Amino acid sequence: MEEKKALLVVSFGTSFPDTLEKNIAAIERDVSAALPDHVLRRAFTSGMILRKIARRDGVHIDDVPRALARLVAEGFTQVVLQPTHIMNGDEYDKLCGQAAPFTGLLDLRLGTPLLTEAEDYQALARALMDSLPAPGEGEALVFMGHGTGHHANAAYCQLEYVLHDLGWKDALVGTVEGYPGFAEVLRRLSERPHIRAVRLHPLMVVAGDHANNDMAGEEEDSWRAQLEGAGYAVTCTLKGLGEYPAVRSLFARHALVAHDR
Amino acid sequence: MEEKKALLVVSFGTSFPDTLEKNIAAIERDVSAALPDHVLRRAFTSGMILRKIARRDGVHIDDVPRALARLVAEGFTQVVLQPTHIMNGDEYDKLCGQAAPFTGLLDLRLGTPLLTEAEDYQALARALMDSLPAPGEGEALVFMGHGTGHHANAAYCQLEYVLHDLGWKDALVGTVEGYPGFAEVLRRLSERPHIRAVRLHPLMVVAGDHANNDMAGEEEDSWRAQLEGAGYAVTCTLKGLGEYPAVRSLFARHALVAHDR
Amino acid sequence: MEEKKALLVVSFGTSFPDTLEKNIAAIERDVSAALPDHVLRRAFTSGMILRKIARRDGVHIDDVPRALARLVAEGFTQVVLQPTHIMNGDEYDKLCGQAAPFTGLLDLRLGTPLLTEAEDYQALARALMDSLPAPGEGEALVFMGHGTGHHANAAYCQLEYVLHDLGWKDALVGTVEGYPGFAEVLRRLSERPHIRAVRLHPLMVVAGDHANNDMAGEEEDSWRAQLEGAGYAVTCTLKGLGEYPAVRSLFARHALVAHDR
Amino acid sequence: MEEKKALLVVSFGTSFPDTLEKNIAAIERDVSAALPDHVLRRAFTSGMILRKIARRDGVHIDDVPRALARLVAEGFTQVVLQPTHIMNGDEYDKLCGQAAPFTGLLDLRLGTPLLTEAEDYQALARALMDSLPAPGEGEALVFMGHGTGHHANAAYCQLEYVLHDLGWKDALVGTVEGYPGFAEVLRRLSERPHIRAVRLHPLMVVAGDHANNDMAGEEEDSWRAQLEGAGYAVTCTLKGLGEYPAVRSLFARHALVAHDR
Repeated sequence: MEEKKALLVVSFGTSFPDTLEKNIAAIERDVSAALPDHVLRRAFTSGMILRKIARRDGVHIDDVPRALARLVAEGFTQVVLQPTHIMNGDEYDKLCGQAAPFTGLLDLRLGTPLLTEAEDYQALARALMDSLPAPGEGEALVFMGHGTGHHANAAYCQLEYVLHDLGWKDALVGTVEGYPGFAEVLRRLSERPHIRAVRLHPLMVVAGDHANNDMAGEEEDSWRAQLEGAGYAVTCTLKGLGEYPAVRSLFARHALVAHDR
Repeated sequence: MEEKKALLVVSFGTSFPDTLEKNIAAIERDVSAALPDHVLRRAFTSGMILRKIARRDGVHIDDVPRALARLVAEGFTQVVLQPTHIMNGDEYDKLCGQAAPFTGLLDLRLGTPLLTEAEDYQALARALMDSLPAPGEGEALVFMGHGTGHHANAAYCQLEYVLHDLGWKDALVGTVEGYPGFAEVLRRLSERPHIRAVRLHPLMVVAGDHANNDMAGEEEDSWRAQLEGAGYAVTCTLKGLGEYPAVRSLFARHALVAHDR
Repeated sequence: MEEKKALLVVSFGTSFPDTLEKNIAAIERDVSAALPDHVLRRAFTSGMILRKIARRDGVHIDDVPRALARLVAEGFTQVVLQPTHIMNGDEYDKLCGQAAPFTGLLDLRLGTPLLTEAEDYQALARALMDSLPAPGEGEALVFMGHGTGHHANAAYCQLEYVLHDLGWKDALVGTVEGYPGFAEVLRRLSERPHIRAVRLHPLMVVAGDHANNDMAGEEEDSWRAQLEGAGYAVTCTLKGLGEYPAVRSLFARHALVAHDR
Repeated sequence: MEEKKALLVVSFGTSFPDTLEKNIAAIERDVSAALPDHVLRRAFTSGMILRKIARRDGVHIDDVPRALARLVAEGFTQVVLQPTHIMNGDEYDKLCGQAAPFTGLLDLRLGTPLLTEAEDYQALARALMDSLPAPGEGEALVFMGHGTGHHANAAYCQLEYVLHDLGWKDALVGTVEGYPGFAEVLRRLSERPHIRAVRLHPLMVVAGDHANNDMAGEEEDSWRAQLEGAGYAVTCTLKGLGEYPAVRSLFARHALVAHDR
């Protein structure tokens, strides 16, 4: 009997149709292209977003247990589960816990988050450097990540370290909720007296609420406003990581590694 | 949000459409009538039977993991799982093992087999006594069960004990593969010198291969042939337990108890 | 490095030093003799008895988790755990649950209760028949078991069945708390009008409270008193099963089977 | 009944008696002082070191399963388990796996590694800054950590980030086996043209083989030798983190947090 194989791409989720298309669906397509004999499926982990989509659009999207249960019910026997998470944090821990009951029911191959091994940092840094214009004279790049209390939060410092290591000395990484925060970013900018302009980029798969408000918003406590208040010329790029083909190909690579392991 | 509730009736299975209808489907209907707000679902545990049905009829029936996974996938949150098994034997142990991964995904309420508590034996004995003519003068009833190496096999002796206790002194219970076997039945008959005639009944949910061949077959080692060879007049009733409404109502009662527990 | 091997004999327990010596310690010795290269250890499962012994005598006896933990702590790597339980009931289920966390820490080989497979009933019946005088003319033997609501309770009926099957037609089995109870025993006696005398025996490893009071007590609701009230001459034998070498050797055999499995 | 409480301090281990005393035993003492009503116990996780000590000295030290089993066997009911690990890496994952079977047997309170939350990095950085002389004019500090393929390896970059953030701009962190490695350290030194001298410190609880050989060894591929080859004046401090009271107090604080959680 032929083995039925599926690829389940798991994202936090978004309720913005445009963002869904540009980021999540785009990643799904590129990961799927790497595993052409696997049926593509989608799951979101955010209950709030799933409920919002169901209520507003009458559209049902599976969470992880239901997506895996559906694959079991349909007779799939091998499933590559690739998260679009950046870090090995709480969301990924939760995902592993949700997948655990299915390990006896499926040949389940779990892909790792974007930033797991040392090589992943090099790869993401290079993908960003290939996708974005290098910082010009007097210009800094600041990536805004989400941040977390989970110990995986250390990933942000390593990414900045690697960006410097690869030559982008004026690329900085900060987070909304973790360490380093905006204060640390500001301090690091001030240590670079030649910097006059800052380009802000979200370091999130999806450019959603945090990118639009915390990073680029009109409110006086947005990063943009605070940087302008500190005298910097600021430009904001509202593109999630999922909009960069070079980043999407990293998720595809992770899925392939999981498949071949 | 409204809770979605299902009743999953789990049987060993049969590949005979007629038997399926008269026994398994009949039990399913009666158990379902006791839980009218639960969607009825079917699962079989025998991989051999599932594959035979799929190959022969192109019909897919779920095994337990797929049936439970399907319920999760469809958003059911409460499931009463009622087996049509007679005993707490290997099949039931396997069922419990298969259900275990789903206990975190569903409010799963597991019904017990037909013969679990002392009251169950009284209830089955009474159901049989209500459904069958009492042994006449010089007549014995012999129930043929399946039998197992599992310690639950002791149930057969208790059922015979209870039949005697309730007044049917000439009702005996034997098994094809366990203890007591045919030799013990024959010995017990020979201890009743007034017995001239034997009525054979399967003690199985479905009157299948064992009932048709081991019990009532033309071969010289069938129970019928051996009893006839020993001088008894033999009549065979090829009805599985599932064909008696009084027995079916016991499964319904078990499902209700599981639901209310 | 040499493997350290232990035999852990697990009993419900007793607080009577005499009973401990005659029954439990005697079983332990005989089982131990069958596994001479295993260090012998004891555990009791009854928290009430353990606390009573600790309070009264200042003596600590391990429960199962502590006994197994102690073996891990001392570097034992293979442990044969032999219960002195009669049935696969609640106590044995609890034992299996307590042993489960240790399966990754030890090569744990779990012996079965006295009455598990069909052969076990034959073996126990023969051991009793070898150890006790056969019922004389007009005499019945009644074994009083504990009884339980667990489905394993069916074991009592099978034991009586087997005793009859092996020729002791006037040996009956009843229980204090399960089925068959005293009423069923009395009815079965009344069906044997030739019976004038009853010999009562506990069907318990230890002849403790139930044997001394429920079976042989002076109170009017003891089995002895009720049988005497019904006109039978009654004799009571206050010996637990552990006092019969032939029964003890069955536990030893179970331990050997567990070891060799 | 009074609760028996223990503190189990778990270290990778060392076979050097001097190191054991100065580092591991010193941490144990300080953590123990924070939980004065807990009996102190020791466990090592390195099987190689445990076997070496057993063979050489005839001394047995428990691994984690045996230490926890011993506590169960002795009747302890509450155990604070504090690792002396720096990171949430493979060793800590293994520790959690080994502790898991005991969660049903003990009230087990698991302390976190030295570098878990953002505050931990601040605390360790401050402890180092309080314990060591600040880098002098033209002087850099280089901390050599172990490094790992586990995603927790990102901790090293965050520690360097925090050291800079707190003012020690010329403190660098590298690892023997992970990222950043010596090449990255050397590059960062070369970006600081004013640096002429390097002080090397192990970023390990114990100053063992890595500190003595990979860091400070005479071989030409030691960090010392390579730095000297690159023209730096090098001094090596062969003190493990456990030798700094300020670091030891951090482990004590982690144990208290675990206890109070």
